[in-house]
Amino acid sequence: MTFELLSVGTELLLGSIVNTNAQYLSRRLSELGFNVYYTTVVGDNPERLKAALEIAAGRADAVITTGGLGPTGDDLTKETIAEYCGVKCVPDEESRQRIIDRFKRGNMYMPSSNFKQAEMPEGCIILKNDNGTAPGAIVESDSCKFIMLPGPPSEMKPMFDEQVIPYLEQFSDGVIRSKSIRVFGLGESAVDEMLSNLINNSTNPTVAPYAKTGQVELRITAKADTVDEAKEMLKPMQQKIEEILGDRVYGTGIDNSMENVVVKTLRDKGLKATCAESCTGGLIAEKITRIPGSSDCFDCGYVTYSNVQKADMLGVNPDTLTKFGAVSEQTALEMSKGARERSMADIAVAVTGIAGPGGGTPDKPVGLVYVSICAKGVHKAFKLNINGSRDNVRERTSLQALDLIRRCALGLEIKI
Amino acid sequence: MTFELLSVGTELLLGSIVNTNAQYLSRRLSELGFNVYYTTVVGDNPERLKAALEIAAGRADAVITTGGLGPTGDDLTKETIAEYCGVKCVPDEESRQRIIDRFKRGNMYMPSSNFKQAEMPEGCIILKNDNGTAPGAIVESDSCKFIMLPGPPSEMKPMFDEQVIPYLEQFSDGVIRSKSIRVFGLGESAVDEMLSNLINNSTNPTVAPYAKTGQVELRITAKADTVDEAKEMLKPMQQKIEEILGDRVYGTGIDNSMENVVVKTLRDKGLKATCAESCTGGLIAEKITRIPGSSDCFDCGYVTYSNVQKADMLGVNPDTLTKFGAVSEQTALEMSKGARERSMADIAVAVTGIAGPGGGTPDKPVGLVYVSICAKGVHKAFKLNINGSRDNVRERTSLQALDLIRRCALGLEIKI
Repeated sequence: MTFELLSVGTELLLGSIVNTNAQYLSRRLSELGFNVYYTTVVGDNPERLKAALEIAAGRADAVITTGGLGPTGDDLTKETIAEYCGVKCVPDEESRQRIIDRFKRGNMYMPSSNFKQAEMPEGCIILKNDNGTAPGAIVESDSCKFIMLPGPPSEMKPMFDEQVIPYLEQFSDGVIRSKSIRVFGLGESAVDEMLSNLINNSTNPTVAPYAKTGQVELRITAKADTVDEAKEMLKPMQQKIEEILGDRVYGTGIDNSMENVVVKTLRDKGLKATCAESCTGGLIAEKITRIPGSSDCFDCGYVTYSNVQKADMLGVNPDTLTKFGAVSEQTALEMSKGARERSMADIAVAVTGIAGPGGGTPDKPVGLVYVSICAKGVHKAFKLNINGSRDNVRERTSLQALDLIRRCALGLEIKI
Repeated sequence: MTFELLSVGTELLLGSIVNTNAQYLSRRLSELGFNVYYTTVVGDNPERLKAALEIAAGRADAVITTGGLGPTGDDLTKETIAEYCGVKCVPDEESRQRIIDRFKRGNMYMPSSNFKQAEMPEGCIILKNDNGTAPGAIVESDSCKFIMLPGPPSEMKPMFDEQVIPYLEQFSDGVIRSKSIRVFGLGESAVDEMLSNLINNSTNPTVAPYAKTGQVELRITAKADTVDEAKEMLKPMQQKIEEILGDRVYGTGIDNSMENVVVKTLRDKGLKATCAESCTGGLIAEKITRIPGSSDCFDCGYVTYSNVQKADMLGVNPDTLTKFGAVSEQTALEMSKGARERSMADIAVAVTGIAGPGGGTPDKPVGLVYVSICAKGVHKAFKLNINGSRDNVRERTSLQALDLIRRCALGLEIKI
């Protein structure tokens, strides 16, 4: 079964927004084992929308549209597809009631134009929208299936995941479930090599690696007759991967970003962490505090950009700074020690480095970073050499510091 | 003249990357007064690429492709377009030499496959690539112009701006230049209303507003016979906008992000700033230190998440915390005062609030934030009520704090 994505909206053609919907759907469909051959963007223009629809329907088995389900006269997706399929749009009582209820709950005035959103193609499958007013719809014609989703990603994504995926499963040979495994501390080529047998020879479940800044995401996807069966198939593959990659695997759940894993681990263990940051300038603290509930495990952070403040705020010995420089193992060690003592946190990390683009020397080039950790019985520093832009140096350094907190909190070997 | 964008690359159809090239080109073309009617994405597949090309050439006056100019057998854009136009690809000596030089400069081994990148459609206009190995090309057929650009945004954007825009100017009635003006402290509808006359009645230059998180960007675009003339036309319009919006306009240059403007202003004035952050958790410091050279104006930042640390690190009176709570005007005022005294910075900002999603009460709901500033002769706090997600509350709070630093450094009225 082949797919085409058709994104509808003049704001996309003006470049006011970027088409993240197409990326999301492309990725999800490919994980489900379906092929997307084309993605098209068209504006809110009836003739061009109709023309794009005809082309898409002529070359794909299923067309997924996003956008054009709003209440205004500009929103034409449903009407154009209904016309193409030769069906009428008729009021759907349940959708109408859901829209009324939504406005009531929000204590908002409801413009009558919103009732247009409850006019649905006759005989369609209605996709409920728990996050907005526009219901989605699936219309099946002989040659092509049309799946209409709202434009806002916060409405589109849950509708796709919760209602469209179960619908699509009938067209695959069974149900499909996948799981994401996050890896830190190994490059993509290293992961590729270590898992080459699994990646190249596994057909069900499959294993696919995706490189991200400073980390690798693995996605295992299983196809089975039932959801339970698919989930069961994922387990031994996850176990094999964890056996091979060991504690380089840091996250396997849904919210498996590094900062989520760190906050969850600290809270589970009843530990507190702190950070002393030079080159990352607050990024480590900012990542930790992105996560709701981080106040349970994070009291404070120190952004010590200047030498004077490394001494004042963290108690780094001015002689250390003079003798070894701000970017040195010694300074990093004293920063983490000072941060731990002053904050009374269980675990302190410290980073100092040259983020660039300026400030590098032959001895201490851009990308040279020291990361240190201090905890009960642990006081170490590691030297990193990071390529790339200022943003890249800061991002990778912050991930490395967070991974050290994770390792320490879990009692794993402290290594980079 | 109408355009279609054709992005080539299987990685787009797999959802591995998001199509930011299409957004960039859409926006630039619309600023130049050209219409984009369709955007298509197709994979590295010869038949489907050819089919997409035929459709695009049939409905647009010009097709801009991105991607598929690489050295491997998968990269087919140039060859497919040359075939469609009935021309051969022939070696171009200058492009060949540029590729050799590039590898030499980087001290890298050059695979011979790279010479494929110097095979150019006969009679084409060659677009030099200063940021990568793949040259771009323009081929003009009777019915359609094909503009081929490399896929990596760091190569595509400068090639488009420096070489394609001058080429396209011949098809517009003159040259086109635009300028971005950034506004903080006024909502989009307020800006719309204040500038309604300019927005609705200006034809050359035109004025168009774009809403961003917590701020508005205005883009003025002028069309004239010469670049100098266009630039001259922008000036009075910029002046009119600045007269109407006053010091709500914060950035008019190229790097006009709030953090860039703040760092530049502080450096120009020889001032230092610091920040004491509760709900933003390091985001203000992180934004300032994103900017190269920020070490000239930023020594340190305090992330004081817990009450104990607000007292310890900033000297907030524990009685204030008990009596008024951490999220209060009084606490914010003491935080900024303490941060200024301890850091010896000229300007200190402090923020404390409830970022959510939990932690709100009827008295102090999610989104309640106090922002304070302390400088010579200035000690103020402001109450904000911010809607939206945790991320949104943090982002808007950080922008508000940065805008207060800007106002203070420039000697403007201290207001939100």
